[in-house]
Amino acid sequence: MNHVPFLDAALEEARIGRDEGGIPIGAVLVHAGEIVGRGHNRRIQDGSVIRHGEMDALERAGRRSAAFYQACTLYTTLSPCPMCAGAIRLYGIPRVVIGENRTFLGEEDWLREHGVEVTVVNDPRCIELMQRFIEAHPALWNEDIGE
Amino acid sequence: MNHVPFLDAALEEARIGRDEGGIPIGAVLVHAGEIVGRGHNRRIQDGSVIRHGEMDALERAGRRSAAFYQACTLYTTLSPCPMCAGAIRLYGIPRVVIGENRTFLGEEDWLREHGVEVTVVNDPRCIELMQRFIEAHPALWNEDIGE
Repeated sequence: MNHVPFLDAALEEARIGRDEGGIPIGAVLVHAGEIVGRGHNRRIQDGSVIRHGEMDALERAGRRSAAFYQACTLYTTLSPCPMCAGAIRLYGIPRVVIGENRTFLGEEDWLREHGVEVTVVNDPRCIELMQRFIEAHPALWNEDIGE
Repeated sequence: MNHVPFLDAALEEARIGRDEGGIPIGAVLVHAGEIVGRGHNRRIQDGSVIRHGEMDALERAGRRSAAFYQACTLYTTLSPCPMCAGAIRLYGIPRVVIGENRTFLGEEDWLREHGVEVTVVNDPRCIELMQRFIEAHPALWNEDIGE
């Protein structure tokens, strides 16, 4: 599968979040070549501690069967934290494509240990977006990753 | 600390969920002996795939500092799934008290490996509540745990 349009869509979500004044991380859930859920981090916008980009995309995809999730790929601009990696495992999503893991390294090994196919792109656009945010708002970023 | 009133509060949340027609799992987040967030599973009520009981309690506790979470205990009526265990790890919550793990065994070992103190009560009220729900609604239960 060509990852580019889906990673681009996740990046578009991250930029929407940034333009809303939020933490610029986005994600899309893709089923059979079609985006079925898209979202971005909503900590600032909604005061949410659980709406990371990946969680927001899953929530917006709605209630789905196990068989549905098993035919999905999750695209996210940033390496998934333990909560988001746990959600990927809970629903048995077999493939994750990660925009970058240079600014934050999440639970990629744990996902791989449980059979999830993890692809890391290290797209310079994703890296730059996070670097700029972390430099400008270190306290917000630490809050989002529990540090 | 005396766990009883806090586990009772989590069970009360689970029963509220049941009485709403939902999946009967509840949780409370406790800081310095005070409940700061309480919640229950909202899959049925809100069509949510991320509002497990633990996640709902965390969300309702609002945005908190790392130091705040590190002084918290999470009480939940049921052993936490990978998503909820991941949220506990993300926020560095050091103690989890679990009502029961007979009907579902979550990521207790993973939490312990990362230094979380896990206490399992196996309270008969929690066990019976889940047993009745699973027997009555097996398909809903499987959906909630991604099976």
